[in-house]
Amino acid sequence: MDRLSLLREEMKSNSLDALIIPRFDEHQGEYCAPHDERLAWTTGFTGSAGLALITLKEAVVFVDGRYTVQVRNQCSAETFAFQHLFEEPLEHWLSANVNRGERVGVDPMLIPSNWWDRFDGGVEQAKATLVATPYNLVDEVWEDQPEKPLAPVTPYSVEHAGKTSLQKRGEIAAQMKEAGAKLLVETQPDNIAWLLNVRGDDVEFNPIPHSFLLLKDDGSACWFVNSRKLSNTLEDYELDGVETADPRDFLDGIENLTGENAQVLVDPDFSPVAARISVKQAGGIPLMQRGAITLTKAQKNSCELNGLRACHIRDGIAWTEFAAWLKREVPLRAKAGNPVYELEAEERILGERQRQSGFVYPSFRSISAASGNAAMCHYAASDATNTEILPEQTYLLDSGGQYIDGTTDATRTFAFSEVNDEFRRAYTAVFKGFIALASLRFPKGTQGYHIDGFARKPLWDLGLDYDHGTGHGIGHYLSVHEQPQRIGKPYNPVDLCAGMVMSIEPGFYVADKFGIRIENLFEIIEEADGFLSFKNLTYIPIEPQMLNMVELTRAEMKWLGDYNADLKTILGPELSPDGLDYLHDCIELPD
Amino acid sequence: MDRLSLLREEMKSNSLDALIIPRFDEHQGEYCAPHDERLAWTTGFTGSAGLALITLKEAVVFVDGRYTVQVRNQCSAETFAFQHLFEEPLEHWLSANVNRGERVGVDPMLIPSNWWDRFDGGVEQAKATLVATPYNLVDEVWEDQPEKPLAPVTPYSVEHAGKTSLQKRGEIAAQMKEAGAKLLVETQPDNIAWLLNVRGDDVEFNPIPHSFLLLKDDGSACWFVNSRKLSNTLEDYELDGVETADPRDFLDGIENLTGENAQVLVDPDFSPVAARISVKQAGGIPLMQRGAITLTKAQKNSCELNGLRACHIRDGIAWTEFAAWLKREVPLRAKAGNPVYELEAEERILGERQRQSGFVYPSFRSISAASGNAAMCHYAASDATNTEILPEQTYLLDSGGQYIDGTTDATRTFAFSEVNDEFRRAYTAVFKGFIALASLRFPKGTQGYHIDGFARKPLWDLGLDYDHGTGHGIGHYLSVHEQPQRIGKPYNPVDLCAGMVMSIEPGFYVADKFGIRIENLFEIIEEADGFLSFKNLTYIPIEPQMLNMVELTRAEMKWLGDYNADLKTILGPELSPDGLDYLHDCIELPD
Repeated sequence: MDRLSLLREEMKSNSLDALIIPRFDEHQGEYCAPHDERLAWTTGFTGSAGLALITLKEAVVFVDGRYTVQVRNQCSAETFAFQHLFEEPLEHWLSANVNRGERVGVDPMLIPSNWWDRFDGGVEQAKATLVATPYNLVDEVWEDQPEKPLAPVTPYSVEHAGKTSLQKRGEIAAQMKEAGAKLLVETQPDNIAWLLNVRGDDVEFNPIPHSFLLLKDDGSACWFVNSRKLSNTLEDYELDGVETADPRDFLDGIENLTGENAQVLVDPDFSPVAARISVKQAGGIPLMQRGAITLTKAQKNSCELNGLRACHIRDGIAWTEFAAWLKREVPLRAKAGNPVYELEAEERILGERQRQSGFVYPSFRSISAASGNAAMCHYAASDATNTEILPEQTYLLDSGGQYIDGTTDATRTFAFSEVNDEFRRAYTAVFKGFIALASLRFPKGTQGYHIDGFARKPLWDLGLDYDHGTGHGIGHYLSVHEQPQRIGKPYNPVDLCAGMVMSIEPGFYVADKFGIRIENLFEIIEEADGFLSFKNLTYIPIEPQMLNMVELTRAEMKWLGDYNADLKTILGPELSPDGLDYLHDCIELPD
Repeated sequence: MDRLSLLREEMKSNSLDALIIPRFDEHQGEYCAPHDERLAWTTGFTGSAGLALITLKEAVVFVDGRYTVQVRNQCSAETFAFQHLFEEPLEHWLSANVNRGERVGVDPMLIPSNWWDRFDGGVEQAKATLVATPYNLVDEVWEDQPEKPLAPVTPYSVEHAGKTSLQKRGEIAAQMKEAGAKLLVETQPDNIAWLLNVRGDDVEFNPIPHSFLLLKDDGSACWFVNSRKLSNTLEDYELDGVETADPRDFLDGIENLTGENAQVLVDPDFSPVAARISVKQAGGIPLMQRGAITLTKAQKNSCELNGLRACHIRDGIAWTEFAAWLKREVPLRAKAGNPVYELEAEERILGERQRQSGFVYPSFRSISAASGNAAMCHYAASDATNTEILPEQTYLLDSGGQYIDGTTDATRTFAFSEVNDEFRRAYTAVFKGFIALASLRFPKGTQGYHIDGFARKPLWDLGLDYDHGTGHGIGHYLSVHEQPQRIGKPYNPVDLCAGMVMSIEPGFYVADKFGIRIENLFEIIEEADGFLSFKNLTYIPIEPQMLNMVELTRAEMKWLGDYNADLKTILGPELSPDGLDYLHDCIELPD
């Protein structure tokens, strides 16, 4: 029997007429372990977001704009219909297509409460029922499903973390008391890693362990972690007041620790709806609020900020050496008939990083993209697509590293000869937008969507725009995309605060021709008058040769000159003669 | 018995433990008729937004930041407690203070569904019940309550409206069909006036009649309007397919016209929750969506736009003549010991408007504010506050008119001698922000909160800001504040579209010292490349004398020069020699 048939048999034995299969794992993160690739197993679709709806006769895959082409390549149109995840959302499909009295199942560990409520609304309109399945139906029929990850959990020293876990738990417990909450449900791995000062390796690129946690308002906690991951005894982790339990007992744990009428904090967007259900079953009152840990972690402490500043210097050295190599080798090797390819360039930046102290591994799969490949915002070179980087074309590298003292993420666009007018015009606008936002001062209470337009305005002036966000948060030796703050067009009601670290990364793309993006990380600082501004963290030269200098204001020229000149002080002493030459080429502004 | 005691007796006879008294009338507008000033009658508070919660022992008035001082002046602190309408909202009070099993009443005609749901959430947390009262309890005990307004309804000619009511109803009906709706509930007076091509005079400053309307998906309608207002026969209004009914039968009408399982469009923010309740009672399905009429009306047709352009020329002549008079008289009269006062200036601009053809009455109470009074954004001069306009101080006038072919609204700030550095710095920043937004190009899909910051950036650069929105929609011989589009910090998910008319009005205020605001209206137009931009509608000189010219870019100087020079072409032929002199003074830029 094929996979869908197996699933449908399982659905029937649960009296289900339809089954929702999210791409999420139990931790609602961006990266899944192979064990959790249920959507890919069922449908073949391997994108990083989406979901499927399987009925006894039909199968629909919902993906966003990034994946409309990919999903059609990966899933047979004979078996699957395709819909847009946001524009034709599942709840509309449910309200229009489910029959009265039918039962639609979903594993309540795999969707957050807000998604449940949306789907429930659709199902209710059809006078049908949304059912929390008692076990995961895909797991039941997936014969060779990989094991759950079991990477060891390692202690993360207070020297890097800046605060002990006890201190952090005390701070969060104080916030819980203020909110009148007795218990806090935490399922996000980076939040738990931060709170407990531990790191792990359960998914690619993110030094996080999979586990669950319940925090009490006295700062003590119950940590639901597979004991086989704990290579040390609990004392080695310096976790006073933390007891461990089996992750399979997580929901029982919620029920046991939730007192009658006790208020329990549950994140509506990032905790599984199963947590809310368990709180209610125990007679508690779920407080559906964004996790206190998420917000506290986002405002880095001074030790974390120092670590981020330090690792960015080392990352800048790696980048500058890489850029010097790239600029030299691309023309030489092309001439010699042995061009540099995308995958070699990706290897090269990795090698440069590996020479730096404290480097662990890349913080995400590098986007190493020549000419038209760079127009695909989520391109990842493979043996099949690996393209030459030719001197008459352009090249984009979006790449970052996990260091023991921080996480980096940056993008530069390179040219190796005179660029044409179309490219120069767009590159200049992207650069102006980058500086406009990087130089902005804004009052407290400002949220990301208030200031996103400053990065776009120079493109708007030309009738151009880009179809992605402008900035994301970043972790401290944690996830490269960290919640909750963002800069982008979508509404995101999170105040930008001092201590937050964010990317600024405007771009511009022409399909099959080129892609442009400039990305630095910044900390948000509070100035003397109480206003906020961005302070640069990324130390990688920005080449002036692709700019149309007459389009720049005096202030923009000064920004660029100062930026590259500062790098000489910051990176200079550590650079090779080649790296230094490259930096000097950038410092010299063309006429 | 005092008013609260009377109310409490009435509450007891309805078995109510608490009663919510909104400031809204049945049409949820900004202006109420005296008949509907229930909040003022009960509490003494006369602000334009707020509500009261009366229990058998307590009484709390909820107001927003504009009214925190006023409410304490108008309501006795012995009788009333005061809370912030948004920061300490009623639903929190209800969840914390209502006892289990209690009944909280509210007139369902006076709050929209979204408010009902918020209050209901608070009451539900307290395990109490929110009750829709069968009649209005205040009306029952308010002995000398004024009659409902009965101003005549007049036809509005298609020559001004651009489309017949039949055409408009056909367009909305097509949208209803697309949404699968059989019926549309409309309770907003300006929407009904627009749809039926009628005008009225039931509240100050707004040429609207109070009525209700139900539109069917074939374009026919039932209009619930007091027949005493209809001075003409229905034929005179050219209302094919419209039948009239008694407004008291509105809810019965909803129940009669809602078929079993029929979908009915109800606006969640602007229609009374009573409409939703009636739809459900009739077995229908309420579609809680922003009214189709609101969005269609917001995108003015070419005839409406022509009218707006024309009336703005006449309004500009009135303003320019006023400004010439003001600039001449303020120093002369002060010297003669007979200074110009705020109320006289307000009379003067009215007189100038009355000389213009098609003028009906002011579109709102003018803010005629000398020196420190201008720091109060909603100041209205009265005999008690009437202040001299002195030549060494500044003066702000925010004023608009209702014309038969459109509505105007503009603000200018005036000085009569050299301004000090603090004022000049702020005025220059306000002006730069005004131009920045007025000159912006932006893509379709942009919403007001995306671009609000451009008007604030020059102030942010100085560590300054203003605590009000940047722009509002405006009606076509209708309300001066028209939904749904806005430019401001708050999230407002409405795309800015070609044909919308909006104000741009940044400001800056120092309590007790001065207030600055510059306001023009603009139409949004679509450019050749599909991007949107603002096209100026307001023709009133902007004085350059208060600007710090060295702070202006070349582009800003050109904008100002072109703007004032254009006025010479547009207004010049109609201006008096005095008006022309004033315009010339503005055209001449200082060094």
